[in-house]
Amino acid sequence: MYVRYEHNNNTYEGYMKDGLVTKLEGSMFENPELSDETVPASSVTLLPPCQPTKVVCVGLNYLDHAKEMNEALPEAPLLFLKPPTTVIAHEDDIVAPSNTGRLDHEGELAIVIGKKAKNISANEAEGAIFGFTCANDFTARAIQLSDKQWTRGKSFDTFCPLGPGIVSDINQKDAKIQLTVNGEVRQSSNINMFIFGVNEIVSYVSKCMTLLPGDVILTGTPHGVGPVNSGDVMSVTIDGIGTLTNALKIA
Amino acid sequence: MYVRYEHNNNTYEGYMKDGLVTKLEGSMFENPELSDETVPASSVTLLPPCQPTKVVCVGLNYLDHAKEMNEALPEAPLLFLKPPTTVIAHEDDIVAPSNTGRLDHEGELAIVIGKKAKNISANEAEGAIFGFTCANDFTARAIQLSDKQWTRGKSFDTFCPLGPGIVSDINQKDAKIQLTVNGEVRQSSNINMFIFGVNEIVSYVSKCMTLLPGDVILTGTPHGVGPVNSGDVMSVTIDGIGTLTNALKIA
Repeated sequence: MYVRYEHNNNTYEGYMKDGLVTKLEGSMFENPELSDETVPASSVTLLPPCQPTKVVCVGLNYLDHAKEMNEALPEAPLLFLKPPTTVIAHEDDIVAPSNTGRLDHEGELAIVIGKKAKNISANEAEGAIFGFTCANDFTARAIQLSDKQWTRGKSFDTFCPLGPGIVSDINQKDAKIQLTVNGEVRQSSNINMFIFGVNEIVSYVSKCMTLLPGDVILTGTPHGVGPVNSGDVMSVTIDGIGTLTNALKIA
Repeated sequence: MYVRYEHNNNTYEGYMKDGLVTKLEGSMFENPELSDETVPASSVTLLPPCQPTKVVCVGLNYLDHAKEMNEALPEAPLLFLKPPTTVIAHEDDIVAPSNTGRLDHEGELAIVIGKKAKNISANEAEGAIFGFTCANDFTARAIQLSDKQWTRGKSFDTFCPLGPGIVSDINQKDAKIQLTVNGEVRQSSNINMFIFGVNEIVSYVSKCMTLLPGDVILTGTPHGVGPVNSGDVMSVTIDGIGTLTNALKIA
């Protein structure tokens, strides 16, 4: 998988496989080539796998989650945004202020854009997608519901873990997505339960805003969202990608 | 006022006064100094005056606008986001797709952040503010209302004109704000009618998300919002800043 990482106080893009990280020549989004510089994965610190100019999110994209939130099924993807300052890496802590009330995990598949895309069709979307990673659309649920506009409850610094890295492709017809809290399964579903598919979502977003390389679209969370407490460790695992793990600290 | 501009195919930051633009040494947000390179303002093309990593917006911050939208008065600023791809300059066209339904102007005062700010008090806010500019929080009203989440209706490319430039200070106790359509006054109010003041807003936002140099906060629109048609020319004028003018093209 493609990763961004820190090694000896420098920042690189690389490809991680079999416990090794190989530095990329050039940039991830423009003909990435493997260099001959390889280091053990254990010697690097993973960074967020990309640096989005925007994080676009889709609400209610799994049938079961719409039901548990008492929301009507959407006729089109429902969009909202998280600011880039929410993005953290695998194993970074989610840090929530102490006055934010109920805090919920939301495991999600994230689409990473590779090419500038405006007003493209679903057929053209595949060419604009660089790959996929795991995300946790972490949410201050009480604030989300009392503000009614979802922005603030979802926009606190550190509320968008992404990682561990980006894979070029997943099996969209059968990929399990699971979120555990302290090892216990809380969300378990399959990407094939999407109301709106990956290409359809990319096309829909691109008809509103131009997507740029590194931009991220979170595709919605399955049923089973629920509260977490300070010290809880959340892991999002998606078939074909890997596991994104983050602990919650309430400051 | 501070401006970003294009001259002979290069991009610069500068200071515009009395029909002249003087190039800055160094960056706008880090001890900007005037160079000795000055050109006529008529020879430059203005760019958006800053390049925000996020555009944070406050809903319903004037008493009269809350009433016209049939919204209850907020107890705290209501936040939403526009993506950076919405930002355009003075005299750039707002370009809306033809299927977006009713399109509304919303003239607003924009705060431009000059220093990284996280979790600051209202007293500390003044030190984080670089200055002020005019904004038009252009809105596909039908989409805003049917989506319920305001994001998509406010996030189309070109839906956030900013400019013409940034002034360091305005008189927050008395600054008229006016929006005209084809020269006819449609919105007319005063910044002193804010429900939440400038420093209070910056503090509030910084308690959710870290603000970075160049980030922009739109402070809400006064009463008088209304629809515009293709070809209409909107001008936002704020005392102490100047006039931001943009035409609407429906594509």
